[in-house]
Amino acid sequence: MNAELVAIGTELLLGQIANTNAQRESQRLADIGVNVYYHTVVGDNIDRIIDTLQRALGRSDLVIVTGGLGPTPDDITRDAIAKLYDVDVVRHEDLVERIRGVFERLGRDMPEDNLRQADVPEGATVIDPVGTAPGFWIDKDDKLMFVLPGVPWEMSQMMEDAVLPELKRRVDQGTIFSRHVLVMGLGESATHDKIRDIVDAQTNPTIAYLAAWGQVRVRITARAADEDEAERLLEPVEEKIRERLGSHAVPGDNENIASAVGELLRSRGETLAAAESLTGGMIGEILTETEGSSEYFLGSLVTYSTESKHDVARVPKEILDGPGAVSEETARSLAEAAAEAFKADLAISATGVAGPAEQEGKPPGLIYVGATYRGRTEARKVRGYGDRESIRRIAANSALDLGRRLIQDE
Amino acid sequence: MNAELVAIGTELLLGQIANTNAQRESQRLADIGVNVYYHTVVGDNIDRIIDTLQRALGRSDLVIVTGGLGPTPDDITRDAIAKLYDVDVVRHEDLVERIRGVFERLGRDMPEDNLRQADVPEGATVIDPVGTAPGFWIDKDDKLMFVLPGVPWEMSQMMEDAVLPELKRRVDQGTIFSRHVLVMGLGESATHDKIRDIVDAQTNPTIAYLAAWGQVRVRITARAADEDEAERLLEPVEEKIRERLGSHAVPGDNENIASAVGELLRSRGETLAAAESLTGGMIGEILTETEGSSEYFLGSLVTYSTESKHDVARVPKEILDGPGAVSEETARSLAEAAAEAFKADLAISATGVAGPAEQEGKPPGLIYVGATYRGRTEARKVRGYGDRESIRRIAANSALDLGRRLIQDE
Repeated sequence: MNAELVAIGTELLLGQIANTNAQRESQRLADIGVNVYYHTVVGDNIDRIIDTLQRALGRSDLVIVTGGLGPTPDDITRDAIAKLYDVDVVRHEDLVERIRGVFERLGRDMPEDNLRQADVPEGATVIDPVGTAPGFWIDKDDKLMFVLPGVPWEMSQMMEDAVLPELKRRVDQGTIFSRHVLVMGLGESATHDKIRDIVDAQTNPTIAYLAAWGQVRVRITARAADEDEAERLLEPVEEKIRERLGSHAVPGDNENIASAVGELLRSRGETLAAAESLTGGMIGEILTETEGSSEYFLGSLVTYSTESKHDVARVPKEILDGPGAVSEETARSLAEAAAEAFKADLAISATGVAGPAEQEGKPPGLIYVGATYRGRTEARKVRGYGDRESIRRIAANSALDLGRRLIQDE
Repeated sequence: MNAELVAIGTELLLGQIANTNAQRESQRLADIGVNVYYHTVVGDNIDRIIDTLQRALGRSDLVIVTGGLGPTPDDITRDAIAKLYDVDVVRHEDLVERIRGVFERLGRDMPEDNLRQADVPEGATVIDPVGTAPGFWIDKDDKLMFVLPGVPWEMSQMMEDAVLPELKRRVDQGTIFSRHVLVMGLGESATHDKIRDIVDAQTNPTIAYLAAWGQVRVRITARAADEDEAERLLEPVEEKIRERLGSHAVPGDNENIASAVGELLRSRGETLAAAESLTGGMIGEILTETEGSSEYFLGSLVTYSTESKHDVARVPKEILDGPGAVSEETARSLAEAAAEAFKADLAISATGVAGPAEQEGKPPGLIYVGATYRGRTEARKVRGYGDRESIRRIAANSALDLGRRLIQDE
């Protein structure tokens, strides 16, 4: 089954938001072995919407449409789809009641326009609303079309509750199995250089890279009849790759270094704290993205100003006046301050120049990360590249990786 | 001039990354009045790439292609475009030298594959590389195609250095002018309800909404011959909208509440600190996204664990044992702790339940934000909605807005 994802909304074409819905949908479809061939974004224009959907139905078995189901006049997805299938929209009274109920529970007056959300193209199967907008799906001429709200969490929940269960009934399960090797401290081409012969020798499994902010994720994908066969194909290839990459390869199958460190700490019943300068809170934010991080993450001292490095994290004045706020010494001192303030087993730190301007005469991209674990403190210099966001993410990931190495070197 | 953005890369279709390039490109094109009608993503498959580009050239005056210009075998954009225009690729010796130079400066060995990046379709105009991959553009049959690397910061820089200057020469400047009103503490439909008659009465300027995480941005867009005419159209409409929305409308033209608070502090020469629980560092991270935030942002106490709220932020045990970590009292105490620790003029705080699980018997979405400014401390309860990320972003934005209100109420 091959799929196309169509997002509707002029706000996407104006760049007001990124199409994160397509990313989320793609991930979930990849998990069940559905191939996504195209993402398309089109604005709130009925002719272009119909044209886009017609083309999508022509070349794909499955089309998932998001957006344009809200209550305002520019929400025209319902009408476009009714026109496409040459049917009317019908108002569902149970949906009307439901929408009224949502507003009553919130204690808010319901704008009359909201009832437009109870309109669904004739013949479509309704998907229960998560917020106030229902989704729906249409199965016609061997083509399946799901239509979901554009609000990311409403879309996600309908994807889990309605779309994936329906698709799983239809697609041949157990065709694609993947494993990942997370690589730290090596770029994409350096990684490829080390394992090039393994990659070239393979047709099943295949190997692909994803590089982002100081992390490279090697994805090993096998096509197999069942999980056992997939294991037999994946195991030796993964082993060879890990051997070649040595300590750059992070043990386990982790999406990123934050979850790898989290897993490591959880399994040991240990805790983590941070002290951050150029990352401004990003290390804590990344660690707490996932539920359950409170099991190991205690907190972070975000000391963005130089004075606060002394006032809050007690970095000695001699260090700040000597080597400076962007230095190995400050990285060490920050890590130790975090360990003490939060009584953490592991503490990590990052200081550096996010840019674009210099700081203390030091260039953008210059980063020092630190970590302290069981009385041993280490710091290292890292070269960040790219824009401000890229440099900050590299700093956060490098600090987390130094923490990982300290635990594993024990 | 209407445009289509085509991103090439299977990693996008697998959901490994979001198409943030399209967002960035769209923003910059909107700024100069180019209408973007479609975004398309296609994988590393030469037939589907050619098919997609042919269609794009058929319906758009301008096509901007990103991705697939790297050194690895799955980077086939150069070849697809040569085939599309029926020309060969030629190796540019000056680019070869340049690529060798980049590796020499980094002190790394150059994998031989990297030289593929010096290949450009015959007749195309080369855009100087930012990293190692050059971009290029082709102007044929009244259709303009730019081809840029997929790495976001390389793409961005080429967009600024080469694409926008070339486009500005071609498009009729001064056709579209926009202003924004940032609305806090009202949802999208509540905002629309308050100004519906103004919206309905308008054809030029037009009014659109963008809602995200507790913020609604009202965009007022005028088509006009020049800036003076645009001002005459925009001014009275903006004024009417602001009057209607009262203190919910944030003064100034701000993209988000973080930059609004930043502007306010900068203009007053005042400083800001935070104390965060459920946001885990996000408040600091948002504030430090932009350069220059060090002028007003000092730092944040991220006290994620309950113990750290006492140990690091000195929240009294009676509060933590009584009303609890998720309470108005804790929000007030955290804000005051941050003000004291960082000696900040304004300090803000957020505590709450990010979910999906309950905490202290309190439901996901329950948030308390606090702020203290010149001896006056306030806290308020906020209802977050959506998933974990949504709840955390609403908490961060609500804390920032409470800070904004305290300053403006002075």
